Amino acid sequence: MPLRTAQQYAQSLKDGRTVYYRGERVPDVTQHPVIQIAIEHASIDYQMAHDPAHRDLAVVRDGDTGEETSRYFTIPRSSEDLMARSRLIEAATRLGATLVVLIKEIGTDALFGLHLVAQQVDARQPSAYLDRVRRFHTYCRQHDLALAVAQTDVKGDRSLAPSEQDHPDYYVRVVERRADGIIVRGAKVHTSVSTNANELIVLPTRAMKAEDSAYAVAFATPLNIPGLSMIASPYGEGDRRPFEHPISSRHKMMETLTIFDDVFVPNDRVFLDGEWQAAGLLAHTFVQFHRFTAISYKLALVDALVGAGALLAELNGLEKVGHIREKMTRLIAYAETLRALVAQAAAQCDTSNALGIAVPNTLLTNIAKLHFASQYHQAVATVQEIAGGLLVTAPAAEDWEHADLGPLLRHYLGGRRGVAAEERMRAMHLVQDLTASDYGGYQEVLAIHAEGSIEAEKLAIFRGYDVAAAKRYARMLAGIAT
Amino acid sequence: MPLRTAQQYAQSLKDGRTVYYRGERVPDVTQHPVIQIAIEHASIDYQMAHDPAHRDLAVVRDGDTGEETSRYFTIPRSSEDLMARSRLIEAATRLGATLVVLIKEIGTDALFGLHLVAQQVDARQPSAYLDRVRRFHTYCRQHDLALAVAQTDVKGDRSLAPSEQDHPDYYVRVVERRADGIIVRGAKVHTSVSTNANELIVLPTRAMKAEDSAYAVAFATPLNIPGLSMIASPYGEGDRRPFEHPISSRHKMMETLTIFDDVFVPNDRVFLDGEWQAAGLLAHTFVQFHRFTAISYKLALVDALVGAGALLAELNGLEKVGHIREKMTRLIAYAETLRALVAQAAAQCDTSNALGIAVPNTLLTNIAKLHFASQYHQAVATVQEIAGGLLVTAPAAEDWEHADLGPLLRHYLGGRRGVAAEERMRAMHLVQDLTASDYGGYQEVLAIHAEGSIEAEKLAIFRGYDVAAAKRYARMLAGIAT
Amino acid sequence: MPLRTAQQYAQSLKDGRTVYYRGERVPDVTQHPVIQIAIEHASIDYQMAHDPAHRDLAVVRDGDTGEETSRYFTIPRSSEDLMARSRLIEAATRLGATLVVLIKEIGTDALFGLHLVAQQVDARQPSAYLDRVRRFHTYCRQHDLALAVAQTDVKGDRSLAPSEQDHPDYYVRVVERRADGIIVRGAKVHTSVSTNANELIVLPTRAMKAEDSAYAVAFATPLNIPGLSMIASPYGEGDRRPFEHPISSRHKMMETLTIFDDVFVPNDRVFLDGEWQAAGLLAHTFVQFHRFTAISYKLALVDALVGAGALLAELNGLEKVGHIREKMTRLIAYAETLRALVAQAAAQCDTSNALGIAVPNTLLTNIAKLHFASQYHQAVATVQEIAGGLLVTAPAAEDWEHADLGPLLRHYLGGRRGVAAEERMRAMHLVQDLTASDYGGYQEVLAIHAEGSIEAEKLAIFRGYDVAAAKRYARMLAGIAT
Amino acid sequence: MPLRTAQQYAQSLKDGRTVYYRGERVPDVTQHPVIQIAIEHASIDYQMAHDPAHRDLAVVRDGDTGEETSRYFTIPRSSEDLMARSRLIEAATRLGATLVVLIKEIGTDALFGLHLVAQQVDARQPSAYLDRVRRFHTYCRQHDLALAVAQTDVKGDRSLAPSEQDHPDYYVRVVERRADGIIVRGAKVHTSVSTNANELIVLPTRAMKAEDSAYAVAFATPLNIPGLSMIASPYGEGDRRPFEHPISSRHKMMETLTIFDDVFVPNDRVFLDGEWQAAGLLAHTFVQFHRFTAISYKLALVDALVGAGALLAELNGLEKVGHIREKMTRLIAYAETLRALVAQAAAQCDTSNALGIAVPNTLLTNIAKLHFASQYHQAVATVQEIAGGLLVTAPAAEDWEHADLGPLLRHYLGGRRGVAAEERMRAMHLVQDLTASDYGGYQEVLAIHAEGSIEAEKLAIFRGYDVAAAKRYARMLAGIAT
Repeated sequence: MPLRTAQQYAQSLKDGRTVYYRGERVPDVTQHPVIQIAIEHASIDYQMAHDPAHRDLAVVRDGDTGEETSRYFTIPRSSEDLMARSRLIEAATRLGATLVVLIKEIGTDALFGLHLVAQQVDARQPSAYLDRVRRFHTYCRQHDLALAVAQTDVKGDRSLAPSEQDHPDYYVRVVERRADGIIVRGAKVHTSVSTNANELIVLPTRAMKAEDSAYAVAFATPLNIPGLSMIASPYGEGDRRPFEHPISSRHKMMETLTIFDDVFVPNDRVFLDGEWQAAGLLAHTFVQFHRFTAISYKLALVDALVGAGALLAELNGLEKVGHIREKMTRLIAYAETLRALVAQAAAQCDTSNALGIAVPNTLLTNIAKLHFASQYHQAVATVQEIAGGLLVTAPAAEDWEHADLGPLLRHYLGGRRGVAAEERMRAMHLVQDLTASDYGGYQEVLAIHAEGSIEAEKLAIFRGYDVAAAKRYARMLAGIAT
Repeated sequence: MPLRTAQQYAQSLKDGRTVYYRGERVPDVTQHPVIQIAIEHASIDYQMAHDPAHRDLAVVRDGDTGEETSRYFTIPRSSEDLMARSRLIEAATRLGATLVVLIKEIGTDALFGLHLVAQQVDARQPSAYLDRVRRFHTYCRQHDLALAVAQTDVKGDRSLAPSEQDHPDYYVRVVERRADGIIVRGAKVHTSVSTNANELIVLPTRAMKAEDSAYAVAFATPLNIPGLSMIASPYGEGDRRPFEHPISSRHKMMETLTIFDDVFVPNDRVFLDGEWQAAGLLAHTFVQFHRFTAISYKLALVDALVGAGALLAELNGLEKVGHIREKMTRLIAYAETLRALVAQAAAQCDTSNALGIAVPNTLLTNIAKLHFASQYHQAVATVQEIAGGLLVTAPAAEDWEHADLGPLLRHYLGGRRGVAAEERMRAMHLVQDLTASDYGGYQEVLAIHAEGSIEAEKLAIFRGYDVAAAKRYARMLAGIAT
Repeated sequence: MPLRTAQQYAQSLKDGRTVYYRGERVPDVTQHPVIQIAIEHASIDYQMAHDPAHRDLAVVRDGDTGEETSRYFTIPRSSEDLMARSRLIEAATRLGATLVVLIKEIGTDALFGLHLVAQQVDARQPSAYLDRVRRFHTYCRQHDLALAVAQTDVKGDRSLAPSEQDHPDYYVRVVERRADGIIVRGAKVHTSVSTNANELIVLPTRAMKAEDSAYAVAFATPLNIPGLSMIASPYGEGDRRPFEHPISSRHKMMETLTIFDDVFVPNDRVFLDGEWQAAGLLAHTFVQFHRFTAISYKLALVDALVGAGALLAELNGLEKVGHIREKMTRLIAYAETLRALVAQAAAQCDTSNALGIAVPNTLLTNIAKLHFASQYHQAVATVQEIAGGLLVTAPAAEDWEHADLGPLLRHYLGGRRGVAAEERMRAMHLVQDLTASDYGGYQEVLAIHAEGSIEAEKLAIFRGYDVAAAKRYARMLAGIAT
Repeated sequence: MPLRTAQQYAQSLKDGRTVYYRGERVPDVTQHPVIQIAIEHASIDYQMAHDPAHRDLAVVRDGDTGEETSRYFTIPRSSEDLMARSRLIEAATRLGATLVVLIKEIGTDALFGLHLVAQQVDARQPSAYLDRVRRFHTYCRQHDLALAVAQTDVKGDRSLAPSEQDHPDYYVRVVERRADGIIVRGAKVHTSVSTNANELIVLPTRAMKAEDSAYAVAFATPLNIPGLSMIASPYGEGDRRPFEHPISSRHKMMETLTIFDDVFVPNDRVFLDGEWQAAGLLAHTFVQFHRFTAISYKLALVDALVGAGALLAELNGLEKVGHIREKMTRLIAYAETLRALVAQAAAQCDTSNALGIAVPNTLLTNIAKLHFASQYHQAVATVQEIAGGLLVTAPAAEDWEHADLGPLLRHYLGGRRGVAAEERMRAMHLVQDLTASDYGGYQEVLAIHAEGSIEAEKLAIFRGYDVAAAKRYARMLAGIAT
């Protein structure tokens, strides 16, 4: 039954998992007023697989068995595979109204990275990691599972290594090794979609030294395992009317602080255990794929900014005004440069590894991410500027339906001839929800911090570039013998 | 009784005014869950006058009568007066936790402008406008009133003049002239603090032509006058815990769509009535003062960004990191350049008008406003970048108080030694509330649109500069005879 | 004899052409102290064809005849053809030490455009333009000619059309039509490589109206035709030592004001004559190709900036310094984003025209050009900042060879251990020549104005984007029925 | 004879000084084709003192003796003194056609710094430095001397202290102490106006440690002292016609590598000798004043950019075009923000030192400098963009005077009606000389590196700001007990 329905997905979440929300244990996530929005949002993934309009993109069919599985689980072998994956992620996020769906994206990014690193660890010393990863990968694909990934540890003092901290629990670690598995303890922050995924993949967050080997651990676990608690962030909650918040009233992603209170992981779910030399590599390899996911899903967001700017310019009657066109041109260049960089990151992928997995071009992926992140707030400002002050001073949804006030609003809030006042107000609320709200703030912070910080991207760019070749050219130009 | 108490102020608002919120008439604004936050915020003004720490700045004493009045009502006559006003506005906004108080600032900006324009209109043809303005000014000062200003009309199609619109009500206009006064009709948007002010000053929003003379109208009216309705914007409402939203749980400004449904204004409250040549001048003169108010109150906001950045850098243990210092330096330069421009706009004021009123330097005021507005979003991004992703993924206030979860949070969310987890979380929530929330979005949009748009400021800069002198220097350099 | 040698090329320029330099007629351009540098530079093109290291890129072999011709003349049919052309242009410019060679690039850009437009004009009404263009194209390829293009008219008052000017000669026009050809009059500015090309292709510079039909003219002419005068710009001349000016002492491009004083053009060299509807199309189509050439040759320039920055950082001992790495990262992202955009402009080319010619993607080409142009000066500033003040205060070449001074310089101007003082000085001079000199100024101005201004690129971006699709997405998000 | 004439100044330079230019000893600097331009430029200072139009600004009259001296030598005691000094520097630079005159500015900056530091050193341990500084100051003022300052050492490996270098001569040091004075050895780079000043003040370039005490030396010496050699930089030399290079054909500043080959300095000219604790302080205190000089003289440069932009916009007929006005507005804001910061740096000066010397506000001076430096290249780009491509493709001066070509140029290069072609060409050449030439490159590099690098300014800003106060405000806002 590889392709689950949205309903099957939702049912699968009634599994006794431990989720806290505002200090209270959530008995059933599917009934929680906030989390159920996130579940509904995540269902987009399952709906696409059954929707003729998206089926070709969302589903792959095995040539031999005829079995259909979600494309997310397909290991990319070529630029074309990467582009298909990118287009699927973009399409899902468009349906998600600029919010990434993520329940298969991030997990498969982790699986691809695990394949590559497991192969290398196995090659260095006999171990069975690659085999375990492959079996787990097959299991997820076969059951069409929703996956979360926990990577960022709580970290304590950032200037200290895991083993140097005030207490040993600032990074997730192995506290006990048993014949059949390991016991892990610690906590991870920013765990996205964990409240509503089936499996959680846990990865190290940084490079380790020998003394940190207990912290060099990667594994997978069902989310209802004993000892695993999720404390959900209430960020962005609130009773939001669809008229006023067309995006955030319907779309939501949950994040948790995820605590491992001596959780048992059986051996076949352990993918790294003490091989500290591989911790940084695994963190890095996951991020290679995950930043490519990021720049793919951001396309829906930047397109929404361009579209919202263009729509408001039209409804405000400003389409021909010089400075508005200048602003639109900057937005277009911002969006399309990102799109070109995504395509080129796929086109120049690296398949030179032992498994022939197509890894998106590191340099271009990070340049794309930096391009997106470092200009995002300015793009937001531009759209807000085109829209106007009504963004934050508009009447309420109820006023439009009021017997006396409604007609007054329609009388007074008209704009250009032919534009209904209510239509313009809807567009205004879109910009407000997208850029000047809790949701807008969420997207701003994600732009900077999600999938690695801006500074991490800069470092990857600096390291990924062939500086030596550039210097050779400069020496040649300068007439310096080399 | 010039200096009212906060309580007297609140009581004065129980006056039968017509305010709608989410489609319902508000029987008593002081009891409304959202509006009362705005009233509490506005009370800062009255509290300062009675607070020894602020009294010298907030209150002026008449040398002859010994009467004490709020400094806001003092007509500035010198650079020093303007700087004192600026410091008062800044101090009030600091107490307002970065949100301007505004209930005297904007009204007196309007009064100063009305003085200057009334004098010019009177000089052109015999009329009594200046006298009326002076009496109204005295009345407001004597009763220590809270004032709102309605300027921006709903405008309809922005490319058309008032008299060319689809219907005649897109700009507020005189529909009838009677012996004892005028009847006005129309609607204004973005009317700040109107739900909780005593008097409303209405000004034209643009230059007019002869055919628009019915729209060339300025007046004042009590806010409980029959025919005047305010439809409040619910923007940013919501049940917010002080721990999570240290600013917006306690500070609030209301905006309304303000509808004049054949409101009667007696003659002595009419300050412009048909003199279409003066409409643009009045709009412009008000803005001269109001943008100076703006750059004064924004100082608290930019200081908060610098301070929040510095605090998070410290609590995250990043104070010595090179790129963090670079970011802090940019924030400091941003804030202190604004401060220097404010001081210089006061220092180079213009007192050459017939009334000897000190008008802040137009060129520098607008440059300051443009400086603030065009770099605001980048400053926000910088502070978000320093703070980290916990901005939008943190646990809830209730989790910290939970018997089991609280200790876990304190264990896992510690940071640099000596920094309590909860303290760091409070600082994180400050940044979240200030920059990545409904309130943050409100400040972003205000940065761009309040007190005139960025494009309006550019125009004022271009016009306020002595281009001819600059060209003369260029010709001299180029060896072109002049 | 398709592939000429550099010597054959130089000899071909001794043809009696009329070139003025500083008010004097140049009897033989190959002997002129300034122009001969430009000829030497242009020879790179001919040298590459005979150099085994570049032959595969520079030369194409006819499958049938075995005849070898310069790749520049090959009409692109696919993304691969465009990329090969791009790589050739980039390689030539690298050999040209960041200065484009241009003697085949620009002419073939014009020829490709002429093919496309001639086909369309012929299709609308029976004419023989396409046939003429093809014969001229074959002639140029067969004789391996160097080509210049004159497009920008002197323009007079830019706000007026050609036929509205103070005198009729501000745009090149047909003053007489004879049975065997036309007589043209007027002047063009910024004609690059004209002093040292064989043929000149003349194109209209803008869209025309019916009354401007005399100005809708395109043709080709040998550069030694009677009536054709070139007044060369002395910009950047001067006695430059290779040690101090490693680029500009050896590389040079000439620009002329090109005057047509009743020049006769035989019919078979006339490619547009009165078809005013096609004037704008031709201007635009040429530019499509030419901007792709531009972004290809700029790659050598941006690589030189990155390389120079990296080299100076190394020689100054600053490679590990945080802010230097930040600056290098920005430079790298600048260069590699341009490279990715070039590749995507080729990958997403348009071959849907009747002739199947591969036209580089308009949107991406212009975004690439804007990206390059709008950040160029900042990139220059960055490299200057890394290099240091010695850029403009260094001793002279002669000082290093002086018996007493030389040793002093080597003693005092040493830097990091292992770096010879002279080597560092050469690198410093490279940056100076590249960025802070007449040549540096030339590159700055070219960045902004060559191949169309920044504003022209913005317009092309705005027009090339599918705004309607973007708005549809925004409407969908806003819940507006469409 | 306090106020010298320009001729007296020039005569004073025939003193046998050792200057090398392109490997040759210059027998008489006043006759050297390049250096004499610099002398002519420097004469502006002496001419102003005798010019009624500038006398009041340039000269101060002693109330008691009636003696007139150059204002540069006046120790500032108040904001007004600093503003007068600033205006004088700006006025001189305007006459210098955007190039600072510097022959009194930099030397008095050093003298002010020496006063402050000498007082502190004397206070710590009995020494006579302040007295020596005062006598030298009086001597310079009495003889109206031209002064150069040598600060930047050649430095060797920048990551090493003076005493750690490969050889001991990378920083100027005392090699021998005699009863009557000291012997110094070493070399300084970037010594401006040294070829044509009378006295040279030598200052340390950085903070020192105890082991570097031999390098903690400051002194003054006549420039014709034996053992002192200046190797002049030929940067920007060349035969330039005033028509084509209206600035650089007439204005010039020389820089030298200045070598001290065991130069003797008598005791009364020694201002620091081994007090290593004061080396950094002296370097820093000089820079405090010198950066204020910098931001004062840059005003002429930024005004020239604004004026040139405005003039070209007019002559090109583009004054009303939207994007041109946008660009002009940005230029105006750039220039006037700098001017406001200069005024505030003076207004908020610090006179709290023991000598009551008015020190310009450090924070604002550095913010002003950073503002200027970090946006300079963009301002250049803007002016180049407004001007157009003719900047680098224009005909030569001789062409305009040619019997046949001249009329052709006037016919074809006309622009807007009423604008003479030649006038537009002069304006174009102004922009070219100012921004896109050797001189333009010189100004670009100076913007970044002169008077301290951009990074040095950032550091001064970070250190000069009251971060603690900013954090206190943030803690208060966040509800963190302090």
